[in-house]
Amino acid sequence: MLFGCGAAAVAGADTIAGLSGLGVLGISFAFGLAVVVFAYAIGGVSGCHINPAVTIAMLINGKISPGGAVVYILAQLAGALLGAFALQQILSGQVAGFTAGEWAYGSNGWGTGYQSEYGLKSAFIAETVLTFLFLFVIFGTTSKWGNSTMAGLAIGFTLVLIHLVAIPITGTSVNPARSFGPAVLAGGAALSQLWLFIVAPILGGAVAAAVWRLLEKAD
Amino acid sequence: MLFGCGAAAVAGADTIAGLSGLGVLGISFAFGLAVVVFAYAIGGVSGCHINPAVTIAMLINGKISPGGAVVYILAQLAGALLGAFALQQILSGQVAGFTAGEWAYGSNGWGTGYQSEYGLKSAFIAETVLTFLFLFVIFGTTSKWGNSTMAGLAIGFTLVLIHLVAIPITGTSVNPARSFGPAVLAGGAALSQLWLFIVAPILGGAVAAAVWRLLEKAD
Amino acid sequence: MLFGCGAAAVAGADTIAGLSGLGVLGISFAFGLAVVVFAYAIGGVSGCHINPAVTIAMLINGKISPGGAVVYILAQLAGALLGAFALQQILSGQVAGFTAGEWAYGSNGWGTGYQSEYGLKSAFIAETVLTFLFLFVIFGTTSKWGNSTMAGLAIGFTLVLIHLVAIPITGTSVNPARSFGPAVLAGGAALSQLWLFIVAPILGGAVAAAVWRLLEKAD
Amino acid sequence: MLFGCGAAAVAGADTIAGLSGLGVLGISFAFGLAVVVFAYAIGGVSGCHINPAVTIAMLINGKISPGGAVVYILAQLAGALLGAFALQQILSGQVAGFTAGEWAYGSNGWGTGYQSEYGLKSAFIAETVLTFLFLFVIFGTTSKWGNSTMAGLAIGFTLVLIHLVAIPITGTSVNPARSFGPAVLAGGAALSQLWLFIVAPILGGAVAAAVWRLLEKAD
Repeated sequence: MLFGCGAAAVAGADTIAGLSGLGVLGISFAFGLAVVVFAYAIGGVSGCHINPAVTIAMLINGKISPGGAVVYILAQLAGALLGAFALQQILSGQVAGFTAGEWAYGSNGWGTGYQSEYGLKSAFIAETVLTFLFLFVIFGTTSKWGNSTMAGLAIGFTLVLIHLVAIPITGTSVNPARSFGPAVLAGGAALSQLWLFIVAPILGGAVAAAVWRLLEKAD
Repeated sequence: MLFGCGAAAVAGADTIAGLSGLGVLGISFAFGLAVVVFAYAIGGVSGCHINPAVTIAMLINGKISPGGAVVYILAQLAGALLGAFALQQILSGQVAGFTAGEWAYGSNGWGTGYQSEYGLKSAFIAETVLTFLFLFVIFGTTSKWGNSTMAGLAIGFTLVLIHLVAIPITGTSVNPARSFGPAVLAGGAALSQLWLFIVAPILGGAVAAAVWRLLEKAD
Repeated sequence: MLFGCGAAAVAGADTIAGLSGLGVLGISFAFGLAVVVFAYAIGGVSGCHINPAVTIAMLINGKISPGGAVVYILAQLAGALLGAFALQQILSGQVAGFTAGEWAYGSNGWGTGYQSEYGLKSAFIAETVLTFLFLFVIFGTTSKWGNSTMAGLAIGFTLVLIHLVAIPITGTSVNPARSFGPAVLAGGAALSQLWLFIVAPILGGAVAAAVWRLLEKAD
Repeated sequence: MLFGCGAAAVAGADTIAGLSGLGVLGISFAFGLAVVVFAYAIGGVSGCHINPAVTIAMLINGKISPGGAVVYILAQLAGALLGAFALQQILSGQVAGFTAGEWAYGSNGWGTGYQSEYGLKSAFIAETVLTFLFLFVIFGTTSKWGNSTMAGLAIGFTLVLIHLVAIPITGTSVNPARSFGPAVLAGGAALSQLWLFIVAPILGGAVAAAVWRLLEKAD
């Protein structure tokens, strides 16, 4: 069940990002709603990690075991590959054929030729700060101060907001697994820029874990 | 009441798909919200099947009787015909007249001339996999691991996501009744391609029923 | 408080419809969300009628007194006038000036020159059938079979769906008060076509009241 | 925690408004969802003021102490500056460079050259009336007549509606802190018009506080 959860959610989000015609608002809602759906379908936020940055932040604050974290992250990476592969299969079935561009399959990136052409500095700041905010909301809604019934909705809406901000900058990752799948299949710039979408989200998540631990001690 | 439920919901969704000017995001929300509304208005998910693929998956897992399933499916097909007919009446009332195209009234389809021109293989994969995910979420939210209060919202949001992915490919069916009504009135390619939108959703739903039965036994 | 409720809600919806640049999806969400907000803010569905067709259907099924219905409807008409007047004031404040068209201030209508140019027959069918569905959902969510916590959300989402269908046809009324305000200020075609947006919604609502009464007796 | 709350929420909303490409519907949802997220994440509506007009209205009705109000408002202004600064940093990281216009960083304003070019009168009416409605919904949902579980959602949806109305007029403030941050960094017209976005929202909120106090006495 664990594998199915990570695979299905990341795969679905990848596929939606890779198909065209939606615009920033549509893609933002797609990623956010995917999280809402899986939170309420499979068993709550803490039971269905689909993001290595979330899993590592939970590990830092002692909410899961190291062994569990490794299994989760492997499932997330496998799911991301599966999603990118499914998208590749569907796109290659077009009657007129399909030519993959440099950042194909919904890959994240930055610099000349990518979205609104923001540089490395903007990309790193955006991914770090937004993953920090994402984890801050996750810790908040699942803490004793939060409203647990509405937690899934609040976390999903946060992801909508994050996409609204970051799609012009990096295509929005805040999730190393979400960047991993498309980058492996697209290669080129998407693969050589993958490091940022591993480092920045994990950094942002780790800072949120540390801040939240201080807040709980101060209480 | 049974007939009214199937008829109203499928008819409404058909009509929305047949009227123009919304774009992918709007149509996706329309279908998803229709399910949310009926889930909360008429009495929960298990009490208001509006999709033969859902009904057959529920039958496979023993959640309804064979006789009940037959009655539901007849109501769904009647509702779909009624919806397509209402749409035909409204469209024919335009001052400038209305000419029905080859896939008129929101019909599903694939190949040259339909949406983004995906082939048969892409259409079959998309409809099967997405109906599998749809039923997976339905079984999940209505199981002991799911959050029953939010089930209607989660299932509706899943349908939004499914439409975001599949509108460029097949116009999105994942529901044989939804394809049946428009195809009968449009004829031509819509009718000759109808078989896929019966076979693929039922296949995807049956696999989800089998997988979920295994998960419950493994627990 | 009664007056304030009807006035504020109808006025807000009028004003949103009269301002441009949103498209069908945006306007549909605006009207639906307005109902969600007022349902949860002021005290539930039965406590805040903002639509004469709803009030009359409730009167037919004995859920409010004739005296109460008259007071509600007067408040709704006053609110609609106030909203249209506020909109007129804002629009007249544009630096470049403002010229009111034939169906100005978000007026409902049909025929040559209005939206997608549907005729009288399409307009009457759409307004009657959609108000029927609207009242059907209202009776359903507030009955013993419905989920009362989510009633406000379900009713609001139904209004979103109704707008998605009917904006190209009539601009969507399903509410005589919503049509009344703009028509009085716009005059011309909007005023001479006002009768349909009084007759059709009340007819649709009355049929829904009768059908629901039969369903409750049959139980 | 107090400072973090005000800073993060206002900063996020500022940043979203300053980035382009969303259109009225997208920006409206962004501001509304930001409020929903923070309401459910940090601890309810009364626990997380992110708007000086709300804080002052609460102070008038005796729901917080004068000292608490001062601390909240300082945190809100600090958060708004931080948000505008973060936005400035991200925008300056574009490969092609960035030139700030007269109302840069999502500043509010009116008159020739701003949005749909409404004048001072329209701007003042819109900001006062809409802040009145916003506070009316906040007092309603958190009163004994309201549904406290859905309060966060209702308040957020109200903010969506307010943005749908007012983006063409003033860019939508209803929050002095939200206008303060961008105006300080943009200077020019944004700074010289800032007074309206302080006076009008506080006026609208104060009237709502007085009206609601009368309603509670009348009960």
